[in-house]
Amino acid sequence: MSKREARKALLLERGLEVMKVQGYNGTSVKDIVDAAGMPKGSFYNYFASKEDFAVEALDNVGRATVADGERLLGNTSQLPLDRLRAFFLAHTEQACAEDFRAGCFLGNLGQEMSDSCEAIRCKVQQTLSANAEMFRTVLEQAQAAGQLDPGVEPAPTAEFLFNAWEGTLMRMKTDKSRAPLDAFLALLPRLLGEEVPTTG
Amino acid sequence: MSKREARKALLLERGLEVMKVQGYNGTSVKDIVDAAGMPKGSFYNYFASKEDFAVEALDNVGRATVADGERLLGNTSQLPLDRLRAFFLAHTEQACAEDFRAGCFLGNLGQEMSDSCEAIRCKVQQTLSANAEMFRTVLEQAQAAGQLDPGVEPAPTAEFLFNAWEGTLMRMKTDKSRAPLDAFLALLPRLLGEEVPTTG
Repeated sequence: MSKREARKALLLERGLEVMKVQGYNGTSVKDIVDAAGMPKGSFYNYFASKEDFAVEALDNVGRATVADGERLLGNTSQLPLDRLRAFFLAHTEQACAEDFRAGCFLGNLGQEMSDSCEAIRCKVQQTLSANAEMFRTVLEQAQAAGQLDPGVEPAPTAEFLFNAWEGTLMRMKTDKSRAPLDAFLALLPRLLGEEVPTTG
Repeated sequence: MSKREARKALLLERGLEVMKVQGYNGTSVKDIVDAAGMPKGSFYNYFASKEDFAVEALDNVGRATVADGERLLGNTSQLPLDRLRAFFLAHTEQACAEDFRAGCFLGNLGQEMSDSCEAIRCKVQQTLSANAEMFRTVLEQAQAAGQLDPGVEPAPTAEFLFNAWEGTLMRMKTDKSRAPLDAFLALLPRLLGEEVPTTG
């Protein structure tokens, strides 16, 4: 990585941490350069605008979530539905370790900016779709492996599941509690056409 | 309503429309007074700060969503689960009529502000909980009426359902499409322990 690339990567990494917590409009270019310990003017050597920065940050996060999803959901040492459960459990543990902060950066910026910035909306849409697509693949694999009821349709179930997960992350963030994550994990079997264990 | 109350109500109503689209940090006090056709200085006769405005706006939206929920979910001319479906269908139609803009104001501000403003986070948490509580009541009524499988536990199912709905609204907003709403409606029967109609 050249020095220029390293400085750009540092701005993206540190600026993302700020934007995750403060949102798009709550984060200034000064906040981003301050977080990276760089002078303000240098920002414009790497990005045309804050919007341009956000689109690149979303792209990086999108790649990271897909890589993370492929690692957990593509782990063929487990049966497909077990991988799906492992995915949600791993993210539940991570959310607890992070004190229920930040939530999903893609969801955050999508919710904040979809009506006011088309470039951000398009990037969020594309990235969320790539994530939902991974859920569909694993449900198709589960069906092929005879692990999933043939009556469960992978495409709408994956869509629903992904959106439910995004809503769960949002609620966890507003409640600062793992209860929404636990409700999600408790209901997952029913969504997949399995028996739901009762807590009573 | 006194003239003072009417002017405050106007600020809340018009300012809310702006904040729904632009978010909290994307909306200035000037945007709010401009939307109400009032001079900037007048804002501070009614609100101590933009934060104070947002908390009152959230309170109003919370009351309106509870009133709307009670109207649809408390309509005893229908069986409880039919009311629940009617609720989601009514909101799906409304979202389509609004071109998938805005989404849920409570979710929007919760997602944007929960890590940076405790007063907003608390108000969002309280208001979302009141909404989820209505879902629990209707599921309990469905169980009492023999319409819901006794194996379905109302509390976690209501939590899950409410969060899934919030995630669906977020995704509808980023995708500008009714597909997430349709996936939600298609999966609702399975969540409630009913048979899911296949589309194939």
